Amino acid sequence: MKAKLVSESATLTTDLVLTGETNPLNNMFGGELLARMDRTAGIAARRHSRRICVTASVNHVAFNRPIPLGSVVTVEAKVSRAFKSSMEIYLDVWIEDRENGSKQKANEAIYTFVAVDDTGSPVGVPEVIPETELEKLRYEAALRRKQLSLVLAGKMKPSDATELKALFNE
Amino acid sequence: MKAKLVSESATLTTDLVLTGETNPLNNMFGGELLARMDRTAGIAARRHSRRICVTASVNHVAFNRPIPLGSVVTVEAKVSRAFKSSMEIYLDVWIEDRENGSKQKANEAIYTFVAVDDTGSPVGVPEVIPETELEKLRYEAALRRKQLSLVLAGKMKPSDATELKALFNE
Amino acid sequence: MKAKLVSESATLTTDLVLTGETNPLNNMFGGELLARMDRTAGIAARRHSRRICVTASVNHVAFNRPIPLGSVVTVEAKVSRAFKSSMEIYLDVWIEDRENGSKQKANEAIYTFVAVDDTGSPVGVPEVIPETELEKLRYEAALRRKQLSLVLAGKMKPSDATELKALFNE
Amino acid sequence: MKAKLVSESATLTTDLVLTGETNPLNNMFGGELLARMDRTAGIAARRHSRRICVTASVNHVAFNRPIPLGSVVTVEAKVSRAFKSSMEIYLDVWIEDRENGSKQKANEAIYTFVAVDDTGSPVGVPEVIPETELEKLRYEAALRRKQLSLVLAGKMKPSDATELKALFNE
Amino acid sequence: MKAKLVSESATLTTDLVLTGETNPLNNMFGGELLARMDRTAGIAARRHSRRICVTASVNHVAFNRPIPLGSVVTVEAKVSRAFKSSMEIYLDVWIEDRENGSKQKANEAIYTFVAVDDTGSPVGVPEVIPETELEKLRYEAALRRKQLSLVLAGKMKPSDATELKALFNE
Amino acid sequence: MKAKLVSESATLTTDLVLTGETNPLNNMFGGELLARMDRTAGIAARRHSRRICVTASVNHVAFNRPIPLGSVVTVEAKVSRAFKSSMEIYLDVWIEDRENGSKQKANEAIYTFVAVDDTGSPVGVPEVIPETELEKLRYEAALRRKQLSLVLAGKMKPSDATELKALFNE
Repeated sequence: MKAKLVSESATLTTDLVLTGETNPLNNMFGGELLARMDRTAGIAARRHSRRICVTASVNHVAFNRPIPLGSVVTVEAKVSRAFKSSMEIYLDVWIEDRENGSKQKANEAIYTFVAVDDTGSPVGVPEVIPETELEKLRYEAALRRKQLSLVLAGKMKPSDATELKALFNE
Repeated sequence: MKAKLVSESATLTTDLVLTGETNPLNNMFGGELLARMDRTAGIAARRHSRRICVTASVNHVAFNRPIPLGSVVTVEAKVSRAFKSSMEIYLDVWIEDRENGSKQKANEAIYTFVAVDDTGSPVGVPEVIPETELEKLRYEAALRRKQLSLVLAGKMKPSDATELKALFNE
Repeated sequence: MKAKLVSESATLTTDLVLTGETNPLNNMFGGELLARMDRTAGIAARRHSRRICVTASVNHVAFNRPIPLGSVVTVEAKVSRAFKSSMEIYLDVWIEDRENGSKQKANEAIYTFVAVDDTGSPVGVPEVIPETELEKLRYEAALRRKQLSLVLAGKMKPSDATELKALFNE
Repeated sequence: MKAKLVSESATLTTDLVLTGETNPLNNMFGGELLARMDRTAGIAARRHSRRICVTASVNHVAFNRPIPLGSVVTVEAKVSRAFKSSMEIYLDVWIEDRENGSKQKANEAIYTFVAVDDTGSPVGVPEVIPETELEKLRYEAALRRKQLSLVLAGKMKPSDATELKALFNE
Repeated sequence: MKAKLVSESATLTTDLVLTGETNPLNNMFGGELLARMDRTAGIAARRHSRRICVTASVNHVAFNRPIPLGSVVTVEAKVSRAFKSSMEIYLDVWIEDRENGSKQKANEAIYTFVAVDDTGSPVGVPEVIPETELEKLRYEAALRRKQLSLVLAGKMKPSDATELKALFNE
Repeated sequence: MKAKLVSESATLTTDLVLTGETNPLNNMFGGELLARMDRTAGIAARRHSRRICVTASVNHVAFNRPIPLGSVVTVEAKVSRAFKSSMEIYLDVWIEDRENGSKQKANEAIYTFVAVDDTGSPVGVPEVIPETELEKLRYEAALRRKQLSLVLAGKMKPSDATELKALFNE
């Protein structure tokens, strides 16, 4: 399988925050954003692998900035790194101000998808070629995150998570 | 504020997986489960704090077991530990087999909610009293997870994350 | 088929009342609650029978208490009595106050479901064993309600509805 | 207030049964039909009273005929009788065959709505003038149903339910 | 195939404008109305042809009058003219005032549907017989509109669009 | 107001076709696509004008290519020309093949939005500067389309529609 550029999986979704998606403070429900990100990430994974892709995990997602009713929300998803049959998808979420048009970063999130065949069995996916500085940073960090996942899931001994130790020595 | 038992925030939601919520393999979309868990967790947070509660973060969630169309899915959420104005919510997800009635664990997830006033400013919440063995384990682990969050967010130096180090020495 | 306890079919669903589900007075639409109760009752019927279950009828439901936007609504469904292939499901609906945590009964409702095979033909279901005082009361009353249904549907002569006459002599 | 004809409140809604609204047998969920009927009945009540109207109760509804996926479903609602501030709404549900165009009665249902002011307090509504034979029959039966409701709710002594006794002497 | 009256395909759908369907001015989204009209038009096409019908095109639709939250909206669709396998559907949209009951025309729209078999191939449909004055006017104009569509799609030379020229000589 | 480039309003939305959005041939409902296009077009109009924008009209839209269940659908909207307070939005819709990644044009559509203030009154919008060859072609054609709309609405005499006559002399 031929490796692909990060940009080849880039998926952009722009939509409004509607009334039915807001909490009592008139900000978007966290769960609604999680669902939107899942759909966008799933399309990015599919674009990279050309396979059916299913959500394998959601990395730590922080909701730093409330997203008010009526906002235009842009979710951008890109495959940041591929492992055997899994792909890490990095998501950036922006909201824009209607009056001055300025954009603000509202969130980042990381999902992992697995490519599967029609029976649901994992299948291999192409490697990822990062190009920009940011893509390279995320590509590197993806390995540490994978180790952390394995450690947290009890599938890797902390002492073997060499990349993760780097995090603690940064 | 008087501390509360974990069981006082327990929130149970049972629902079917409908056709519009499934992927091409006829299993529930990850994003749909994330959204359901967010709603259930939000109610648990509200029951503990009696405040408006907003999603602050989602911890690492792994989708280990596909949830087929037509399944009965039970999501149970409980506040596992409270910090100043934030609460860690631990979720257990089960699916049950229609024919033999057996229940299987499909997922665990951890969300963090923050209690806020009408202007969205954080307000204090009661402490949590764990009772069962499992509640105590989760209560202890919550501190490590909080440290990990702070480290990953760059708000705590890895060297100060004493509880987290324990993880790596387990 | 082995008879089952009422508690074995108990199904609990807790959810919020969202903006899109309210009428001009900002209270939950009656129809929305009817649909939620149907889903919860259907799961209870399925838990009792381990079969596909379809709604056969809805008994007289009174909406005594408006359920305001933002309420936490708990619907609890239990099979109160089983006949050949049909099950009476008794539903209790509570709302809770966010600030003081008190729960109030908002509604009761009674649905009847029929267990069917894959072709839609009725199949037999286990009997129900009531345990608590309330379960026993509802179990007894279920027979009167069934007779009333049959009388109203023209399938039983009022003079044969012995249990129903008891109602009019109470 | 000037009395109104039954036909003045007639409300017709025609829609498809979509995939997301069906059970495992590919027939429409009972709860979905209950919700559609509630909305149509609410519009009929509003047309009669020109007030905000809220669901007060649902009379015994029997689901006699399954409604398959893809069906065209027509719900027709008319105010069958008005009491002080409440209105009985009689609903007829038809499905039609795509190929031969024949219509079949799928259901009847009876809802009661109450007209309220902006604070939710009941307000008076016009009387109803039945014209056709069917409208007159339903108008008469509405009184018996009201008495039955009152008896079942414990608000009327069975011995006072004179109209209801007629039912048992039919 | 026997020709059919316009009135045989008449399809009426009455529904409320709910909160989740409105823009920041609290009026119904244009896209929501477009979708409702599509569903109603599709049923009218199916009633005329007794076939599966798919949207082929939407003619120029003007949103002249905003439709406020809470309005009762009535969409009426009728097949105005049939060509080989396509049908022009003319839609009229009214809103009614809750307090005085008056109805106002909010919109007109024209959709074209094509009747297809199970493989999606076009199949012939019956002709249409207009009866009222309005039906006849719309029937005549449908031919001009069809020519205009063909011209705009580059499938007919403007010089051959004899009926359309009539428009420019009116 | 400073004129803006077409590219400044470009809005991209990528999403899947889910089960609940398909017709009996398992292709996307026309009405669902109309609604998605309306939302995307509305965001483009808002980006150009930085105002609340409401749908004014939908130009002739042809559904040339069915969009199967599970497709990835990309809708791109750009303001093609601005008039006093109205904006013509040109939409391109693509679907992509999962296996070979090829993109195919599925649709084009043209919507008109009007910028309004908080009371719903029209307000002026910036002019549009087309850059690419395609943008210039669409910019020119927009004037003919506007004249056609005015003629069809009876607000302009065909003899005054100079640009439109050009169409008939092409």
